Amino acid sequence: MSTSDNSSEISSNETVRPEARKPRGFQDKRAHLIAAEHHLVEQVTQVYARWGFEALDTGPFEYVDALGKFLPDTDRPNEGVFALQDDDEQWMALRYDHTAPLARFVAENWNEIPKPFRRYSAGPVYRNEKPGPFRFREFTQCDADAVGAAGPAADAEMIAIASEAMQACGAAVGDYAIRVNTRQLLDGVMQAANVADPNKRLIVLRALDKMDRLGAEGVTELLGAGRKDESGDFTDGAGLNAASIDTLLQFAKAGRGTRSETLNALSAIAGQNAIGTQGLEDLNAIHEILTALGVTDEMATFDPAIVRGLEYYTGPVFEAELLKEFKDEKGRLMRFGSVGGGGRYDDLIARFTGELVPATGFSVGVSRLAAVLAAEDEGEPKSDGPVVVLALQREHMADYCAIAAQLRAVGVKAEVYLGTSGMKAQMKYANRRRAPAVVIVGNQEREAGIVTVKDLVAGAKAAANISDNAEWREARPGQFEATRADFAAKIKAVVEANNA
Amino acid sequence: MSTSDNSSEISSNETVRPEARKPRGFQDKRAHLIAAEHHLVEQVTQVYARWGFEALDTGPFEYVDALGKFLPDTDRPNEGVFALQDDDEQWMALRYDHTAPLARFVAENWNEIPKPFRRYSAGPVYRNEKPGPFRFREFTQCDADAVGAAGPAADAEMIAIASEAMQACGAAVGDYAIRVNTRQLLDGVMQAANVADPNKRLIVLRALDKMDRLGAEGVTELLGAGRKDESGDFTDGAGLNAASIDTLLQFAKAGRGTRSETLNALSAIAGQNAIGTQGLEDLNAIHEILTALGVTDEMATFDPAIVRGLEYYTGPVFEAELLKEFKDEKGRLMRFGSVGGGGRYDDLIARFTGELVPATGFSVGVSRLAAVLAAEDEGEPKSDGPVVVLALQREHMADYCAIAAQLRAVGVKAEVYLGTSGMKAQMKYANRRRAPAVVIVGNQEREAGIVTVKDLVAGAKAAANISDNAEWREARPGQFEATRADFAAKIKAVVEANNA
Repeated sequence: MSTSDNSSEISSNETVRPEARKPRGFQDKRAHLIAAEHHLVEQVTQVYARWGFEALDTGPFEYVDALGKFLPDTDRPNEGVFALQDDDEQWMALRYDHTAPLARFVAENWNEIPKPFRRYSAGPVYRNEKPGPFRFREFTQCDADAVGAAGPAADAEMIAIASEAMQACGAAVGDYAIRVNTRQLLDGVMQAANVADPNKRLIVLRALDKMDRLGAEGVTELLGAGRKDESGDFTDGAGLNAASIDTLLQFAKAGRGTRSETLNALSAIAGQNAIGTQGLEDLNAIHEILTALGVTDEMATFDPAIVRGLEYYTGPVFEAELLKEFKDEKGRLMRFGSVGGGGRYDDLIARFTGELVPATGFSVGVSRLAAVLAAEDEGEPKSDGPVVVLALQREHMADYCAIAAQLRAVGVKAEVYLGTSGMKAQMKYANRRRAPAVVIVGNQEREAGIVTVKDLVAGAKAAANISDNAEWREARPGQFEATRADFAAKIKAVVEANNA
Repeated sequence: MSTSDNSSEISSNETVRPEARKPRGFQDKRAHLIAAEHHLVEQVTQVYARWGFEALDTGPFEYVDALGKFLPDTDRPNEGVFALQDDDEQWMALRYDHTAPLARFVAENWNEIPKPFRRYSAGPVYRNEKPGPFRFREFTQCDADAVGAAGPAADAEMIAIASEAMQACGAAVGDYAIRVNTRQLLDGVMQAANVADPNKRLIVLRALDKMDRLGAEGVTELLGAGRKDESGDFTDGAGLNAASIDTLLQFAKAGRGTRSETLNALSAIAGQNAIGTQGLEDLNAIHEILTALGVTDEMATFDPAIVRGLEYYTGPVFEAELLKEFKDEKGRLMRFGSVGGGGRYDDLIARFTGELVPATGFSVGVSRLAAVLAAEDEGEPKSDGPVVVLALQREHMADYCAIAAQLRAVGVKAEVYLGTSGMKAQMKYANRRRAPAVVIVGNQEREAGIVTVKDLVAGAKAAANISDNAEWREARPGQFEATRADFAAKIKAVVEANNA
């Protein structure tokens, strides 16, 4: 750090002032966004708690060597994190997700925790990536994981939880989909299509993952000789023969119906070998339990084209997608897409202890969802701010403070204007704070022992119907007088009427 | 970062496993602690919101040059933070408090915010300090600040808010104290005692700050020739003459009565010069407004011995102290001490813009308080966990899942045991999860179309009165049978009875 000279500059006469600027890729969250995110986190964690998960917060840092392969699927496993060296020279990094810290915690506290260990975690994660619109370097994830939980029941539970979490976030049935696949099924069809080479395998998986976006034609090109996109860029293909391509395409297209239909379609393709058969059996068991849990085909489907980080997952995988469209900051309709996902990762703890411990989990990202909700909410005119007591006579501040206290005592948010500007600026301030009302006590009111209340909501409504300035001054819409004994109750009634 | 070789080690055959260890000075927070902290944050931020403050979250990082003098009062202003270099080579650091980011935010968004700007912020702050017992490198602070708010009314409001926040945290009147002083009063008494040298000034302030701990005798030594403590260590004194020491001692002792009494006592000592008179006038105005706000002498007092970071504060300062004692992890009674504080810092924005903007604020640290509450709570035996549906026949998992779903549908937290162990281990698991009840369906129940419920709370109570093993097996306390149609309602009644 070479900045220590700054502080001496500041106390010197020739001050060099720092520029006030937010670090790149981070957000200053204002009240609306915070409220939206808070609401979503509460909703999702309540679902997790109802399913028997308990809260755990592992804090911001992990030692870098503990993050290991739980970093994202990149060729540079230690990039993408915010890392620094502690004073004992050990490298630590801000958590990239909630799963790597969970693995460390479970390995470190194996004897102290109940097993299976069902925990949820809600909080920020940090990614040292290039920021962009709606791409922040800090965002909030809510995770539920069951460690020491083997078998498809645990996976089916996670899928049901994902569905319930989507509903808790405000998505109606039909507005979201949980799409389920398994690694075994993918391995089975690779075998059936004779794809053994790891590089080819990767190209095939990437191609399958694009089924949604490119359709069968585009995926066929990527599985074969390659594909030129609209910009003219050419992507190398996997170079498979027609029979292999056909097998893979049939596989990828099998997820277009009900779960039963998909299982039927898949048994012909993926059931030809042991690993694929295992995948099918798992999906059958998951289907049975989803049905018992009341999770319908509309909520969760099987989709063989779902490919998630396969270095990471060892069994069933799934993705939660919002089908609803929303308007972006330019008013364009956007498809929301993936908001979360999860799956089984049985080598979670083995990294530390060498012992395989079955585990499955789900993670939902609430930040982008909150941003959309907050933007929708911000558009609506509201009067959810505090009542502002105008400070017209500075020598009577104690009295203005007492008036505000009377309002708070009946449960109404209230404040005294603390600036030094005049009445006009104070009214403008009240409007910016979305105040439902202001309280005015000048000489006249003081002498009469009353207060004047301006109901800003009623005033704005009435003013909309009054075109003449003189008429407005005459009518003073929304304005009323009240005694020192009853103004608090009257304002409370105004606030409650607005909220109703 | 020199750790990339680790990842290759992991994929090699001779695996070197990382040790599962928590970074030093950080906490893994379990459910109880999270709940306690969450509760405190909600309580305090509700107070802030009621006083008209709006939420703002400025995120984890600030550029290091923006932190500047708002770092703590140390000789090494840029130490004490967790800093790293962004990929554009700018240094950024995790926020050390909520005030420096507020200054940056206000300077950056001056035209977009209402003025005065009243914001609260609740969240973690990070200090790169030597960790110790109850001294963590991440902890939660809840701050309220009013920027653009001049005059003693704003300070009095902050003191009243501090008092209300203490009550919201569960402290009764009499169990806490807000102690108030002003920088001007300290400057005034320094002048009256002829302390002009900055180094002497610092020694005097440090001595006054110890009034509470060392008493008049110890402080007299520190103001004079110096003091030898119990360990034999000698602290240099300020070397003042008897008259100066007397002035300062009278000043420090003036805060022993009601606010009016303290103001009277102080006027003789600190009212001899302009700056001290200004301090007295401010305290008088604050007293008037506190009284109007219903803040009694028991809630907030004036204490001239309160010294907070004077590089930072420019006017009134105050500290919130919990007088209640609590038991530490070894069962010793401890005085809680300071939980928060604040004051006026009018050069907050000037650092960036050159323009003085009056500002005042309050910060409460909830982490240590939460730790004490959680420890108290954890001691109590509770059954606030989920109902556990035992999984005795793995082939009937779908049915067990459906049973748990029926419980959740009536609002009861419930889960299926997802491990592979037998009944005894499953019962042990239910106890560790503090389950209020377990549901048992074996062959017998399945054939009869019923479920067996063990009410673990009633069972434990009854078992305490049964000494004989055979008798226990006979009575099976807390155990009852229910039909598939009514078990959920019956268990709900058990859970509600426990919570009542």
